[in-house]
Amino acid sequence: MTTTDRGTHLDVEQTDGLLDMDPEAFRAAAHAVVDLMADYLASVERFAVFPSVEPGSIAPAFPTAAPEAPEPIAAILDDYRRLIEPNATHWQHPGFLAYFGTTASGPGILGEMLTAALGQNAMLWRTSPIATELEGVVVGWLRQAVGLPDSFDGLITDTASTSSLIALAGAREAASDDGARMRVYASVEAHSSIEKACMTLGLGRDALVRIQTNDRFEMRVDELREAIARDRKADLRPIAVVATVGTTSSTSVDSVKEAAAIAEAEGLWLHVDAAYAGAVAIAPELREPFHGWERADSVVINPHKWLFTPLDASLLLTRRMETLRAAFSLVPEYLRTLDRQAPVRDYNEYTPQLGRRFRALKLWIQLRWFGLEGLRRRIRHHLELAAAFAKWIDDDPDWERLAPVPFSTVCFRYRPAGSEGSEEALDDTNARIMDAVNRTGEVFLSHTRLAGRFTIRLAVGNLRTEARHVERAWEVLRAAAEEEAG
Amino acid sequence: MTTTDRGTHLDVEQTDGLLDMDPEAFRAAAHAVVDLMADYLASVERFAVFPSVEPGSIAPAFPTAAPEAPEPIAAILDDYRRLIEPNATHWQHPGFLAYFGTTASGPGILGEMLTAALGQNAMLWRTSPIATELEGVVVGWLRQAVGLPDSFDGLITDTASTSSLIALAGAREAASDDGARMRVYASVEAHSSIEKACMTLGLGRDALVRIQTNDRFEMRVDELREAIARDRKADLRPIAVVATVGTTSSTSVDSVKEAAAIAEAEGLWLHVDAAYAGAVAIAPELREPFHGWERADSVVINPHKWLFTPLDASLLLTRRMETLRAAFSLVPEYLRTLDRQAPVRDYNEYTPQLGRRFRALKLWIQLRWFGLEGLRRRIRHHLELAAAFAKWIDDDPDWERLAPVPFSTVCFRYRPAGSEGSEEALDDTNARIMDAVNRTGEVFLSHTRLAGRFTIRLAVGNLRTEARHVERAWEVLRAAAEEEAG
Repeated sequence: MTTTDRGTHLDVEQTDGLLDMDPEAFRAAAHAVVDLMADYLASVERFAVFPSVEPGSIAPAFPTAAPEAPEPIAAILDDYRRLIEPNATHWQHPGFLAYFGTTASGPGILGEMLTAALGQNAMLWRTSPIATELEGVVVGWLRQAVGLPDSFDGLITDTASTSSLIALAGAREAASDDGARMRVYASVEAHSSIEKACMTLGLGRDALVRIQTNDRFEMRVDELREAIARDRKADLRPIAVVATVGTTSSTSVDSVKEAAAIAEAEGLWLHVDAAYAGAVAIAPELREPFHGWERADSVVINPHKWLFTPLDASLLLTRRMETLRAAFSLVPEYLRTLDRQAPVRDYNEYTPQLGRRFRALKLWIQLRWFGLEGLRRRIRHHLELAAAFAKWIDDDPDWERLAPVPFSTVCFRYRPAGSEGSEEALDDTNARIMDAVNRTGEVFLSHTRLAGRFTIRLAVGNLRTEARHVERAWEVLRAAAEEEAG
Repeated sequence: MTTTDRGTHLDVEQTDGLLDMDPEAFRAAAHAVVDLMADYLASVERFAVFPSVEPGSIAPAFPTAAPEAPEPIAAILDDYRRLIEPNATHWQHPGFLAYFGTTASGPGILGEMLTAALGQNAMLWRTSPIATELEGVVVGWLRQAVGLPDSFDGLITDTASTSSLIALAGAREAASDDGARMRVYASVEAHSSIEKACMTLGLGRDALVRIQTNDRFEMRVDELREAIARDRKADLRPIAVVATVGTTSSTSVDSVKEAAAIAEAEGLWLHVDAAYAGAVAIAPELREPFHGWERADSVVINPHKWLFTPLDASLLLTRRMETLRAAFSLVPEYLRTLDRQAPVRDYNEYTPQLGRRFRALKLWIQLRWFGLEGLRRRIRHHLELAAAFAKWIDDDPDWERLAPVPFSTVCFRYRPAGSEGSEEALDDTNARIMDAVNRTGEVFLSHTRLAGRFTIRLAVGNLRTEARHVERAWEVLRAAAEEEAG
């Protein structure tokens, strides 16, 4: 490299093997990849939903060290088809009725493609003006879609775990720290992410006070009130109540209204965990379970669950945006106005992470492609499918429903009419039935325990699930039960 | 819906508008999107690296509410070209020499495409056997590539902020909690994510003790030793030392060896933040700055920086995997063996988040497509480009280099020979020069303050940067300086 009087030039402009994949080679490879993707989506039912593999059996198929020399893309894609696809749990399979579904919709996948190519980092306005401003736009779209007032602002995070952690960090920030140990209240049915947030935030596992539920698995507000009073007497510091609309096990609905009344009376932060069910609120006629959430300090809804957005995308709405900033901003308040000329929003000031993907893009594409009416139609359809399945359970004397069905998840078990088996034997029978159903590869169910009993769950929320898949689930369940009955 | 003796069937199999985008419509749209992506990458230099927009000017171009009715994909993609692309900060532009580069490489983008279509959630082995086992494989590949021994295990997180938070949570877990306030030590040049982790973890801003640096911006180990001794005397509880290899401002290198000796003597967790520079260690002849990191408890390296992986992907390597699990697992240790029949690894037990993207896939594709030799070649080239630029600065009497250049980032300022301006005036001059350079749109630089002085930074680490872009940066810098000199 030399400096000459013409300017400065490098002696050798050797770029071979020093740059990225050539754009035209990328184009060709990406078209081939699109065909792989579309073929996968078109024929995902050829796979067993859960692959027939044992833990530790897959890794040995890969070399133990990275290759030294470059390999052609065709060889890599061949291995993708051979080693990756068949060993996936097929969340895109319409028979995936386990957990809560996370479908990556077609338009959502297009969004991820563009996100990857554009390579934005949404940490500062300056590092991506479009990602920053579109995040504000899309948060506003979703807020209005679920019927929350414009006193709510918000942001998009990776997961509900992060959203709830941010909310509880806000609660901690809002509480005057007098050295007393802090307490957070949530029902025994609340999601594990609430406990994890307490651990991460250094409040400790003990900080989470688990409130008992009624026979519908809803938080008992009398017990909540008592627990708070007891803790205050013990000089502990209550800071937050978490109400769940759609718990993970049974999708039960805590009374947000009553939780709000208590939180207001006690001066506590109210966080509403609607990670799964919140999407339902885009249908105005279905908003009853959410009444009172407009009084919450924060609400989490996961578009990567029932709004069909590719993982990851979690929406945190809050009336306390400035408190979240106080919890996570490294810029002390007294320097803020001196530092800033324009009212720039830098979203990293509200999150534990600095780097942030441009998640608003896929949401913007999806919301436009489906339209709100299209999303409502699909959610209503899932509710209908779940209601039909619940009725089949209810109408069959050999099966028993174990929880109300406020949304699209049915909790049930096999209990043959007139059977006199012990609860333990019934648990074992139902575990075997679920296992047999999952081994068919046609559907994939998960389980939980409700009131101590092994409970099979069927959760409709997958964008590709049709009536025939729910029907088939019922068929294979009954076949497995007949096998058990011998 | 009815139950008949043939089985159970829904009366109406109406799926129109109830499912995902049709797979063949998706295929066509995705091919169109690929052309958008490839066109963008092929012609990204037609954009100004930083767009000419003011804060708040973009959002008004979007409707304030989501559409009710579906819109065709062609209209959405037209708006993408019209509203999204031109308002991005072009991290993919070869003239992007600001911050630390995050290039989304071609093969990395292919990986994101497949990740989106496959829709895995890598939270449990069961929710994605392939994502779980390939993560182990790729972590092993990267660990060996950077020359760390097999006593290190690890995982992939979203960002260095999360990786360092997990590491410090491990330090907190490893420290006996005797109620004393905990202390973490890092240099004044350490990244803001360390302070944010202390805040998030509830250790408090005060928990981070900032150690002064020498005139090369390296942590002063004598001061580190003194600070620990002082805090022990004050009944505070030292828990961790963070050594940075490649600080954000000047890429200075703390002595890991000396930090390790102190951490070992004091019984503290040693975390090495090599988020930017760690990639250099894949070249064995360049490992000198990393000596001693094999004695660390944890090390973070960001593939989404200098390994050209699309955001997000951060690698956390650790010799204390079980301690990380203790910090984040919700399964108490005494239940673990009862719960588990096979030795299944569920990565969510090591992270604050539950849901996890399949990040190993893009790394696997990239490592194979580039090969380790290909990655080394590119990193060596970036080091050469930065060394050439540093020499141009050094050889020009009107410019001044403000820090050593251990890697690919040059810190400098304009200081015309014989000038008698104040430091304040020089600061203003250099801020104006940087601004003028960025307004050309040809290159994008960022700044920092070193020893209180406004410092321009040129960081080479973008996969598309060629010699001509660094040359051009030097030309526009000198032109802007001449303009200043009047």
